[in-house]
Amino acid sequence: MEKERTLKEITPRGEDFSQWYLDVVLKTEMADYGPVKGCMIIRPYGFAVWEAIQADLDRRIKETGHVNAYFPLFIPKSFLEKEKEHVEGFSPECAWVTIGGGEELEEPLAIRPTSEAMICSMYAKWVRSWRDLPVLINQWANIVRWEKVTRPFLRTTEFLWQEGHTLHGTEEEAEEETMRMLGVYRSFYEEMLAVPVVPGRKSESEKFAGALRTYSVEALMGDGKALQGATSHNLGQHFATAYGIEYLDRNQERAKPWSTSWGASTRMIGGLIMTHGDDAGLVLPPKVAPYQVVIVPIPPRKGDWSESVLPKAREALAMLRAAGIRAHLDDRDTQQPGFKYSDWEMRGVPLRLELGPKDIEKDQCVLVRRDTREKAFVPLAGAPARIRELLDQVQKDLLERARKFVADNTTRVSSWDEFRQIMAGRRGFLIAGWCGDAECEARIKQETKATVRVIPLEGGVRPGTCIRCGQPSPQEVYFAQAY
Amino acid sequence: MEKERTLKEITPRGEDFSQWYLDVVLKTEMADYGPVKGCMIIRPYGFAVWEAIQADLDRRIKETGHVNAYFPLFIPKSFLEKEKEHVEGFSPECAWVTIGGGEELEEPLAIRPTSEAMICSMYAKWVRSWRDLPVLINQWANIVRWEKVTRPFLRTTEFLWQEGHTLHGTEEEAEEETMRMLGVYRSFYEEMLAVPVVPGRKSESEKFAGALRTYSVEALMGDGKALQGATSHNLGQHFATAYGIEYLDRNQERAKPWSTSWGASTRMIGGLIMTHGDDAGLVLPPKVAPYQVVIVPIPPRKGDWSESVLPKAREALAMLRAAGIRAHLDDRDTQQPGFKYSDWEMRGVPLRLELGPKDIEKDQCVLVRRDTREKAFVPLAGAPARIRELLDQVQKDLLERARKFVADNTTRVSSWDEFRQIMAGRRGFLIAGWCGDAECEARIKQETKATVRVIPLEGGVRPGTCIRCGQPSPQEVYFAQAY
Repeated sequence: MEKERTLKEITPRGEDFSQWYLDVVLKTEMADYGPVKGCMIIRPYGFAVWEAIQADLDRRIKETGHVNAYFPLFIPKSFLEKEKEHVEGFSPECAWVTIGGGEELEEPLAIRPTSEAMICSMYAKWVRSWRDLPVLINQWANIVRWEKVTRPFLRTTEFLWQEGHTLHGTEEEAEEETMRMLGVYRSFYEEMLAVPVVPGRKSESEKFAGALRTYSVEALMGDGKALQGATSHNLGQHFATAYGIEYLDRNQERAKPWSTSWGASTRMIGGLIMTHGDDAGLVLPPKVAPYQVVIVPIPPRKGDWSESVLPKAREALAMLRAAGIRAHLDDRDTQQPGFKYSDWEMRGVPLRLELGPKDIEKDQCVLVRRDTREKAFVPLAGAPARIRELLDQVQKDLLERARKFVADNTTRVSSWDEFRQIMAGRRGFLIAGWCGDAECEARIKQETKATVRVIPLEGGVRPGTCIRCGQPSPQEVYFAQAY
Repeated sequence: MEKERTLKEITPRGEDFSQWYLDVVLKTEMADYGPVKGCMIIRPYGFAVWEAIQADLDRRIKETGHVNAYFPLFIPKSFLEKEKEHVEGFSPECAWVTIGGGEELEEPLAIRPTSEAMICSMYAKWVRSWRDLPVLINQWANIVRWEKVTRPFLRTTEFLWQEGHTLHGTEEEAEEETMRMLGVYRSFYEEMLAVPVVPGRKSESEKFAGALRTYSVEALMGDGKALQGATSHNLGQHFATAYGIEYLDRNQERAKPWSTSWGASTRMIGGLIMTHGDDAGLVLPPKVAPYQVVIVPIPPRKGDWSESVLPKAREALAMLRAAGIRAHLDDRDTQQPGFKYSDWEMRGVPLRLELGPKDIEKDQCVLVRRDTREKAFVPLAGAPARIRELLDQVQKDLLERARKFVADNTTRVSSWDEFRQIMAGRRGFLIAGWCGDAECEARIKQETKATVRVIPLEGGVRPGTCIRCGQPSPQEVYFAQAY
């Protein structure tokens, strides 16, 4: 039953990116498949990344004035049906509870595919006066969407996310909120995940079911495909109308609020894996790495490592932890240092601290960066300060490297041939004119698998002609194949 | 549509405790009813209490060596059925998903009523060697049990909890873990919630479906009824056998691990409300209070409060927040101070800081305790230090008051008449002998609604005779009517 634990092989990225991704996710024990199709288990190593993400994103959400709450998992069928576009968009993906407590239910209950229906129903009850506005509530919850093709973190039947749901007195305030939260996602992606993103507006065909306007941040993965990183929706008065949210304004007149919703999910973990990972496995940005440093003690050729090496390694561990660094000591006596190096490289720990008998003699240690493999000999007493510097540097360098990758793989194209050629080859973001017509968009997708990712918010408007049909294009957009 | 916001009335505790509880929960906006029977919404004020609970309990769970993970919501019917007692206990309470993605499912999926079935199935896949033990995993999740009679926080169809699931190489280690986590719950209840609890073992009829032994901490509510606060189960080898968890031990022989599970839920919030609340509403222990201090500025008789009072109140707010105190400034200009006093008393904020023109002249403020209504005049500069002292004092006093209540309402009884009389009147904990027979226990329940809450771990064994049947009783137990 027990096998010698050898280093697990990971398919090279260049050979099969998709298999590389699965190998990394499964072999690093970030996640595992569960018994229900499309439902994954987030294992402790992967969940620790989620906890780091959650703590920081939650802080940003609170700093922008929001509070957390918790709404029910079950949404009655009739509630979901109140907003027409919304139910059309989500109903096919719903899981339905039809039996409870041994009896058939009078009305089936959807497992929430998103919570607008539930939350807006409650807002209709709670909001009475202009003094109740704005309502700024967020929740962290599990979501179920019955997906046909699933992949751990990227697209799973059940996933974890946060969903903000707000109400505002004016359209302008709702739009401001929508953009504010898009900005929060953007900074979060760049500052925490070291993943550069392009913020922009979605085309009509890609917007959220029931929204007035959907915005998203789009990232570019290592295989040249785009990943929608998070979305922020201006819902207009659609949901207020559908769910009957009304209040008395300052003039004591009935008024209808504007609403927004915005969310980011465990998919972010997939995005960071596909942005930074390499053939050796994960590369985790220090800010979300469960362990920022792993200490690998090197036993003496002769004699017992517990005499000098292990006690010194434990001292180093205590010193790093006291300095607020997430450090781990690999004191397994069943594995050689070489195995441990590869194992922790695979798991993407940003720094390795090697400590052997010779280092101890010189009162030093060896620090090795996961991303560049650079080595440095550092006096032990100065290790915490040096490690903090290095962690900051790694965080910055990962973002820079990813930015360079995006720049290198973003092409402004002016001919349909070039568009098709690139999409059939290395892919990436293509910036091009688009007429704005949904049928033309569908044709582009059919021919190249590329969709309009966003109508960018930055970079100027640049009118021109549509890359596919040649009709006037009010502004350039980002195309890509997408996850 | 808009009404003058008057102070909402709360039914006196003595008149109708159950209605008092509902009034408090709903009117303080801790929770609200949702559209699905038995499903509540945890509103921001209530959720902030949950966040404080979660942060501290999570820290304690991690300090005892556990890590978090996330397992799927859906449990296939066949998985639930593997442990016979377990499925018998939980199946009648299950909600079943039978339709997904527009199609009838081949196998119905239970919404997890607890996760032993799912987690043990995964452990069977992950655990291979004695080196993999112990496995110490916890998850924070939503749970669904189709309850007939529900009450916000105390018993709801969906609730939030944490559930730890561990594997150990020996029975002794499993029992140690079970007791360790019972101890964690006990300290958590006493130190954070200021709720004293009685730790003990459950009788056979009250134990977890599938467990070898169940332990719990039991609290006594303001109406003399007991609340099971958290449970910790030694599952023996039942689940390892049912789910096929096996490993190679140090001698390279196949072995079966022992498992435990333990959980505490949003029910804790109900427990703290019913322990500390009074006729004016909530009384929140400072450690879990969303706001520890509310600042109520008092406008001058003549003139504008924004000239002097409001700026000074904002200064005080900044000063308290900088000192790490959760402070809130009630700067509503639509309400009088008297209304605000009652409003925040109802919401259970531990301290009120009043600040008026006369106070500002004297460079002082008034601090009023929620629990005792004691007033103190304090120099403004010294307010943060004084507030910290007072918060500590309130926290201690609440626990002491609750301990006294438990002591006053715990009676050692030696006659069945006395037992019945007390249970028909003021109730509370009754300590009495019990023969250990399940039928005798059922008879006691039928006649008095009281059940064996725990066979206590402390206080000595004291053999005697059964309070009901007179047969020998190996040790005294705690009886009470229970939520």
